[in-house]
Amino acid sequence: MKTTKAVFYHAGCPVCVSAEQRFVNALDRSRYEVEVVHLGEQRARIEEAERAGVKSVPALVIDGSTYHINFGASLDAVRG
Amino acid sequence: MKTTKAVFYHAGCPVCVSAEQRFVNALDRSRYEVEVVHLGEQRARIEEAERAGVKSVPALVIDGSTYHINFGASLDAVRG
Repeated sequence: MKTTKAVFYHAGCPVCVSAEQRFVNALDRSRYEVEVVHLGEQRARIEEAERAGVKSVPALVIDGSTYHINFGASLDAVRG
Repeated sequence: MKTTKAVFYHAGCPVCVSAEQRFVNALDRSRYEVEVVHLGEQRARIEEAERAGVKSVPALVIDGSTYHINFGASLDAVRG
């Protein structure tokens, strides 16, 4: 089956961890290929997240659409 | 398989519809029983949403945890 790419950007914050455990794990893995990106550890990908429209973490980008889930930290704060 | 109840609260706004189409449909239906509640049409359930911690729509409540997805309208605005 064709799968859609979904990228979950986070920064290890408590809000992020909660969203990952409950939300990202709830996605149908037979239809979605989910990549989890910790922006604090993979700083080279902050720009990619910004281009995708991510303003804060945690955020999930599915097929070009960006969804901010609650609020953990702004992307500016993650950039430091 | 045991399924977890998930309730998606919305108010028919464009942000809500986008979140429903991309996000709610991405949930694994073999594990999650998803109920979609339009608070503009089911006004009696606004209080229930408020008790669950919903501050704005669209929001998804999974097993007692509330996740606000982007921002469509405040619950106060939905209440009118």
